[in-house]
Amino acid sequence: MSDTFLLPTVQSTADAALAARLQQRIDRKTKPLGALGQLERLALQLGLVQRTEAPVLQSPQLLVFAGDHGLARRGVSAYPQDVTWQMVENMLAGGAAVSVFARRAGLPVTVVDVGVAHDFAPRPGLLLHKVAAGTADASQGPAMSDAQCQAALAAGAQAVRGLPGNAVLLGEMGIGNTSSAAMLLARLADVPLEAAVGRGTGLDAAGVARKRALLAEALARHAALHQPLALLAALGGFEIAGLVGAMLQAAYERRLILVDGFIVGAAALVACAVAPAVRDYCVFAHVGAEAGHAALLRALQAQPLLALDMRLGEGSAAALAWPLVEAAALMLTQMASFESAGVSDSAG
Amino acid sequence: MSDTFLLPTVQSTADAALAARLQQRIDRKTKPLGALGQLERLALQLGLVQRTEAPVLQSPQLLVFAGDHGLARRGVSAYPQDVTWQMVENMLAGGAAVSVFARRAGLPVTVVDVGVAHDFAPRPGLLLHKVAAGTADASQGPAMSDAQCQAALAAGAQAVRGLPGNAVLLGEMGIGNTSSAAMLLARLADVPLEAAVGRGTGLDAAGVARKRALLAEALARHAALHQPLALLAALGGFEIAGLVGAMLQAAYERRLILVDGFIVGAAALVACAVAPAVRDYCVFAHVGAEAGHAALLRALQAQPLLALDMRLGEGSAAALAWPLVEAAALMLTQMASFESAGVSDSAG
Repeated sequence: MSDTFLLPTVQSTADAALAARLQQRIDRKTKPLGALGQLERLALQLGLVQRTEAPVLQSPQLLVFAGDHGLARRGVSAYPQDVTWQMVENMLAGGAAVSVFARRAGLPVTVVDVGVAHDFAPRPGLLLHKVAAGTADASQGPAMSDAQCQAALAAGAQAVRGLPGNAVLLGEMGIGNTSSAAMLLARLADVPLEAAVGRGTGLDAAGVARKRALLAEALARHAALHQPLALLAALGGFEIAGLVGAMLQAAYERRLILVDGFIVGAAALVACAVAPAVRDYCVFAHVGAEAGHAALLRALQAQPLLALDMRLGEGSAAALAWPLVEAAALMLTQMASFESAGVSDSAG
Repeated sequence: MSDTFLLPTVQSTADAALAARLQQRIDRKTKPLGALGQLERLALQLGLVQRTEAPVLQSPQLLVFAGDHGLARRGVSAYPQDVTWQMVENMLAGGAAVSVFARRAGLPVTVVDVGVAHDFAPRPGLLLHKVAAGTADASQGPAMSDAQCQAALAAGAQAVRGLPGNAVLLGEMGIGNTSSAAMLLARLADVPLEAAVGRGTGLDAAGVARKRALLAEALARHAALHQPLALLAALGGFEIAGLVGAMLQAAYERRLILVDGFIVGAAALVACAVAPAVRDYCVFAHVGAEAGHAALLRALQAQPLLALDMRLGEGSAAALAWPLVEAAALMLTQMASFESAGVSDSAG
């Protein structure tokens, strides 16, 4: 792929009149004022995204972007790099956590190979958009060239364009990619590297210390960069760039974006730095156990739906959180109002 | 109803050998060790409840116990007492939050009238086990007689016995019942009344102060009582006693119990005080915005699945949390292992 990627124009969902009508509708549902908490705020967001008082989620699509990382050869992960392609195969065979949880939720899964160091046989559920067989080592130079980064962004956008529906759930697979995410968090949200770097899939304390030292070295090498897409190319992975492209395209098409975990959250940081209105379309599935995840969500002013002490990625938390998003929409369309149900309202 | 209620013998689910086999099975799934966090602990619990390494959830049933409270006439709620029966009608018509969320999750809802101050026409989805048309005012004397409490316990057990499946989701409806729950929490878990009493469906600060004063008066009146079932009769509601009976019966039958919110949690406190092994069967749907809820969960050493700032009751949070319970079971039965998927394990 060598497309150049034209940044789509993302519109804010802000609409004060519609927001007031939605809030009124939510407040007249048969429940105490505000009693559905975060689901009410989510319902309001869904209405704004879809520009309606009666949002309906249609053909939601779970996309898993996969890519390999040059940094992985430097021992930043508890797992060997081969696990990336092995897990892609596991996902396609239906045995990964994301496969199981997505099947339960009725979500079709599409894996997008943006840069795995392995040749996959074509098959249903797999989009082949390989930019290269893994990124370069970001501690030695940029992970991607600008052209590669553009190609990965375009691949992400194309993947979304090719799928139906008005909601995308975004996940990822890439051994070593908590390193990229931590560096993007450090640079884009000004979070100290020590707070941004964690155990990933399961490093011990010595491993985390090594990872921190290596990432500090990589960040020092790219200290002169400031533009979000330049940082993405220098520090990111192909799957993260694919996610950024997918988010920009999804928001451009006014699709809801369900952000999985730490790595997809780092892609959201980049996408929102490029086009702040992307944030309006994002729902955050969970806060996990990875060190920088809570700081990342704070930087995005995001309130996650779940907090189950998970640290898996893949899109697993997005699939688990999906029923809550559906419930928020159904609250608006199926719940009775005090008037329609003949229920007495409070005196207050 | 005037059954006397024979307390069923509830077995602990403890089984060290099975727990070890379950943990081994969980650890060999294709994910970093512990990466599914709380879902892994839930999967272990499900296996122990069902005495198998491959738990399957069959015909889960959502039961909503409804009853009225003498205390409600003393202004402890933001809503008039009629809302209890009106909301039961709303549930039966499918327009309540619990109806909407349960339908989404594929859960049949059964409403059990244990003591609503209203005569319902019989219909599908409604079990008529009315003990009385609301409890007496607990600030003036016991809310129920011992015989009434026994009848409500028996009604709860009977409701569970009459339904198929191996899991029950428990909810409630009863204007004024955060008062009963707060008093039970104060007495059974030694939580100061100030910490246990909250806004309920939406009292303002003055309302909460009045509620606290009234409940302090009620607690003083019943200070000589210590047995959990005596406290239940003195302070509880018919729906809370029904829930206690349902829990004892469900645990006796080794059904999983999904506890909704603050009021059902108070029933769990009573049930666990009567038969501590009930705790082994309980999963806690959420921690909500009601003041005493977090303290209640701590007293039960419970880690809730959701924290969405909700304060609705009904079983709404149980219905929302149900997909997570399903996902935990499917993790054990459908996820691949490192061996079956040919995925490389970590060096560690």
